[in-house]
Amino acid sequence: MPVLLVECPDQRGLVHAISGVLLRHDCNVVGNQEFVDAASGRFYMRTEFDGPQAVEVDGKVDGVGERIVSETQAALPAGARVRLARPGPKRIVVLASREHHCLGDLLIRHQFGGIQARIEAVLSNHAELGDLVAKFGVPFHHVPAEGMDRAAHEAAVSAILEPIGPEFLVLAKYMRVLSPAFVARYPSRIINIHHSFLPAFIGARPYHQAFQRGVKVIGATAHLVTDDLDAGPILVQQVIPVDHTHAAEDLVRAGRDVEQFVLAQALRLVFEDRVFLAGNRTVIFD
Amino acid sequence: MPVLLVECPDQRGLVHAISGVLLRHDCNVVGNQEFVDAASGRFYMRTEFDGPQAVEVDGKVDGVGERIVSETQAALPAGARVRLARPGPKRIVVLASREHHCLGDLLIRHQFGGIQARIEAVLSNHAELGDLVAKFGVPFHHVPAEGMDRAAHEAAVSAILEPIGPEFLVLAKYMRVLSPAFVARYPSRIINIHHSFLPAFIGARPYHQAFQRGVKVIGATAHLVTDDLDAGPILVQQVIPVDHTHAAEDLVRAGRDVEQFVLAQALRLVFEDRVFLAGNRTVIFD
Amino acid sequence: MPVLLVECPDQRGLVHAISGVLLRHDCNVVGNQEFVDAASGRFYMRTEFDGPQAVEVDGKVDGVGERIVSETQAALPAGARVRLARPGPKRIVVLASREHHCLGDLLIRHQFGGIQARIEAVLSNHAELGDLVAKFGVPFHHVPAEGMDRAAHEAAVSAILEPIGPEFLVLAKYMRVLSPAFVARYPSRIINIHHSFLPAFIGARPYHQAFQRGVKVIGATAHLVTDDLDAGPILVQQVIPVDHTHAAEDLVRAGRDVEQFVLAQALRLVFEDRVFLAGNRTVIFD
Amino acid sequence: MPVLLVECPDQRGLVHAISGVLLRHDCNVVGNQEFVDAASGRFYMRTEFDGPQAVEVDGKVDGVGERIVSETQAALPAGARVRLARPGPKRIVVLASREHHCLGDLLIRHQFGGIQARIEAVLSNHAELGDLVAKFGVPFHHVPAEGMDRAAHEAAVSAILEPIGPEFLVLAKYMRVLSPAFVARYPSRIINIHHSFLPAFIGARPYHQAFQRGVKVIGATAHLVTDDLDAGPILVQQVIPVDHTHAAEDLVRAGRDVEQFVLAQALRLVFEDRVFLAGNRTVIFD
Repeated sequence: MPVLLVECPDQRGLVHAISGVLLRHDCNVVGNQEFVDAASGRFYMRTEFDGPQAVEVDGKVDGVGERIVSETQAALPAGARVRLARPGPKRIVVLASREHHCLGDLLIRHQFGGIQARIEAVLSNHAELGDLVAKFGVPFHHVPAEGMDRAAHEAAVSAILEPIGPEFLVLAKYMRVLSPAFVARYPSRIINIHHSFLPAFIGARPYHQAFQRGVKVIGATAHLVTDDLDAGPILVQQVIPVDHTHAAEDLVRAGRDVEQFVLAQALRLVFEDRVFLAGNRTVIFD
Repeated sequence: MPVLLVECPDQRGLVHAISGVLLRHDCNVVGNQEFVDAASGRFYMRTEFDGPQAVEVDGKVDGVGERIVSETQAALPAGARVRLARPGPKRIVVLASREHHCLGDLLIRHQFGGIQARIEAVLSNHAELGDLVAKFGVPFHHVPAEGMDRAAHEAAVSAILEPIGPEFLVLAKYMRVLSPAFVARYPSRIINIHHSFLPAFIGARPYHQAFQRGVKVIGATAHLVTDDLDAGPILVQQVIPVDHTHAAEDLVRAGRDVEQFVLAQALRLVFEDRVFLAGNRTVIFD
Repeated sequence: MPVLLVECPDQRGLVHAISGVLLRHDCNVVGNQEFVDAASGRFYMRTEFDGPQAVEVDGKVDGVGERIVSETQAALPAGARVRLARPGPKRIVVLASREHHCLGDLLIRHQFGGIQARIEAVLSNHAELGDLVAKFGVPFHHVPAEGMDRAAHEAAVSAILEPIGPEFLVLAKYMRVLSPAFVARYPSRIINIHHSFLPAFIGARPYHQAFQRGVKVIGATAHLVTDDLDAGPILVQQVIPVDHTHAAEDLVRAGRDVEQFVLAQALRLVFEDRVFLAGNRTVIFD
Repeated sequence: MPVLLVECPDQRGLVHAISGVLLRHDCNVVGNQEFVDAASGRFYMRTEFDGPQAVEVDGKVDGVGERIVSETQAALPAGARVRLARPGPKRIVVLASREHHCLGDLLIRHQFGGIQARIEAVLSNHAELGDLVAKFGVPFHHVPAEGMDRAAHEAAVSAILEPIGPEFLVLAKYMRVLSPAFVARYPSRIINIHHSFLPAFIGARPYHQAFQRGVKVIGATAHLVTDDLDAGPILVQQVIPVDHTHAAEDLVRAGRDVEQFVLAQALRLVFEDRVFLAGNRTVIFD
């Protein structure tokens, strides 16, 4: 089903204007969600609609989709951002390191059509997960980082990524810090699973930090990556209860199950075009 | 903030039509949620809007609110139900029996303006909670049921309720079954907290049933009351984990905390006009 | 670490007697959990202990483990059941049908040593999952049921299972009902993931039942299999919130994530010898 | 039921020794929980037991309880801490400021015997809650802080507390920082409800911090108070999901329900003598 995504300064009549464009093209609004951020005065809207077949298959084919976008744009205040979500699965690359649980879960889901994406490749700074990836017939690229500085390693990573041209990068426990320059190439298009309940326990070994602090709940955070490590807009968070019998290693183990669950939820939201950025916060229409 | 509530058969252009009415009256849509129930083809919409002061204070004073309703009605297909939520707290009566926890929580919240309602009276078939209610200066009516059949007791209850004319009845652990005739007087206007995780453990002593079954989670259900006992449309459900160390009495105790929490959530949803009925299901815009 | 498991009628001095046996064999209690079921007057105890190396490696090698068991037995009232958990992974067979999510999760975990078991084989009444299983080098047996009555199919299944001699069967969305005769061959040794929050929605198509009922929470139940379908002792239950926007198919999809999570938790509990049966309830020391 | 609490360096035979003392006094262990903290090598044990009536009513009356404690102490390594939980409700004082929700919940529970404590008094640095407290017949002390430095105010508070001699202080949204000197008078005997999910959002206005950060889950933390503000041993944590539609004020409101729930859980654990301190962590036998 086509999805229209609109973001602009709030003013009177926006819903009427946007729904008018769809109506003129014989489209029927099936689901509509909107939100006005009171602090910024910004309007966000996600509209699922039924329309003539040409729109549904691919808005661009006969120009109906393009006309909907351009007419919506014309009906809105300056600075509006309007787009029609491209139908079909997103093209992604998964970056991993040594831990298998998030990657394994994605590969299984991918194999059976359970994520709205096509994994074009998996890339890792370690070789260990190559066998797992190979089982699923997905290309695996081992880009070791030993003896390289960050820039050199990222150049090697980019050399793999560029011919693929992925829409999104998924960091499935990729344990390397990305440079601002690298991140800038994929603005709001890198999804990370952070192995802690942000903003608690930022930095290294969060489960050991959590153990030291004696928390009764641990959790994981999926977020979009920005320059500020551990501080990008949050997509999904979830927690599980723990107690004094959990050693740090037990927290790590328990945490993996949550990480895997949280990352899968976040990817669904992003790949179904349900996420808007509002400064460093997300507006999610689910 | 005024809230417009619309329910009608789905068809093309509804959002445009409704937002057009608001626009003509210089109203700005601040939040809009809608849902089309695919099974029934029915459209539900809840719109919060800013408008001229007359609408905000009380839509009826100068007729702006009434005109919005009637014009919206005129713009929609036959069978549409349109209303503007009345501003201000709902007028309610709470019915209880012997257990204090839900009632106590409501009285505290009420005392400090924490529910969007005014408790006009508390009525109980037992006398025990009278002292508690008196502390808060709320009228308490003891309507004993001993030696009465159901019809006679309900007549006595109704004799108290009728002069009050409450918009909603809240059953805060009221342990008597209401007759269809009584329920019919408050259609979709009686909220019950059911001491189990419906539809598991319907009927009497649900926590003892849960204990016997060895469940690892117990919960409570807030629902609207219909003729079919334990089967009305569900508003809120929540659960907590339990284990083998919980005797039936421990489940009862743990359950109370959830009941109290769930009932408070449900009342907020109802009293903020966030609930539509869709057959035996609820559509809740929160 | 060796684990001693004791179950017997409660009486004074049990802890003292059991800990005395361990002390005489130079063993140190590291973790001890016990529970007296007040209703049945039955005592359950699970003791993790450090001991001489012979005990740790394999209690049976030099007889130390056997002596601990027999001396504990002698120190307890008649009817006591005493055993030392066998070290090392359990030997299991997974039964599946067409759905991949629970099986896929187990295969990934198994591949990386994440469950305390060795999957000796996967058996399915359908062929579809064969390719997935083959990726992981685990034997796959397709035992179609078409044109067979239940007894004949179970005989074919048993013909596969008997040479393997698994300690546990894991039903990972195996959609066939097992006969009492079959179940009796694996007493308390078949773990099932039930695609609903028991005892709500027993029987077929539970998510569709849940949708019809309009519940606000769905969940999954892992349980041990008994003759009484859907009524065996519960191991783990968990739920997730849902709302009116979830069609029945959405509940199915959301439910899969919970099923997968719940089954993995349950297997850990069983395979780490943390579960006692107490009638139709479980006592779980976690 | 009497509860024996033991903490000492771990060594072989502790369970046997302790259970031996109870056996000699004709006591039957009904529930026993123990834990060895691997990092510190420390042993913690909580034993509920049935015994001769003299022990149950009050261990001290005829000396049986005292003998159990002293004999247990003698049987354990140097540095052991042994105590028999005093039967009956704890004597507490509740400190509050302006917010009513935690205090109100405690007063209701207290009124109906729902906490294992007797509230000797409520003390606040503001006058507003006096009326609420008065409804329940509990003494209320208004100790204003205006124009006083912290030492002077705490002296005034202590002048109220000292004649009462409470076993525990409960900070039910008491918004003043306590000095180390004050805290030292109630070692591990002050319970605080922290209005955030520690260690995220320490300091002032945590819900506003949470809003700024765009978190998808908020929570509350009950903890024991130490000198290090916001860093004492954690008793209970719980969270609820939130989303972009929650303004900071909505988070505050939602947070209150969690705070109230979490504080009540924590008080039950402390007042039932289920909590041991292990450095800055808690060992909780529930």
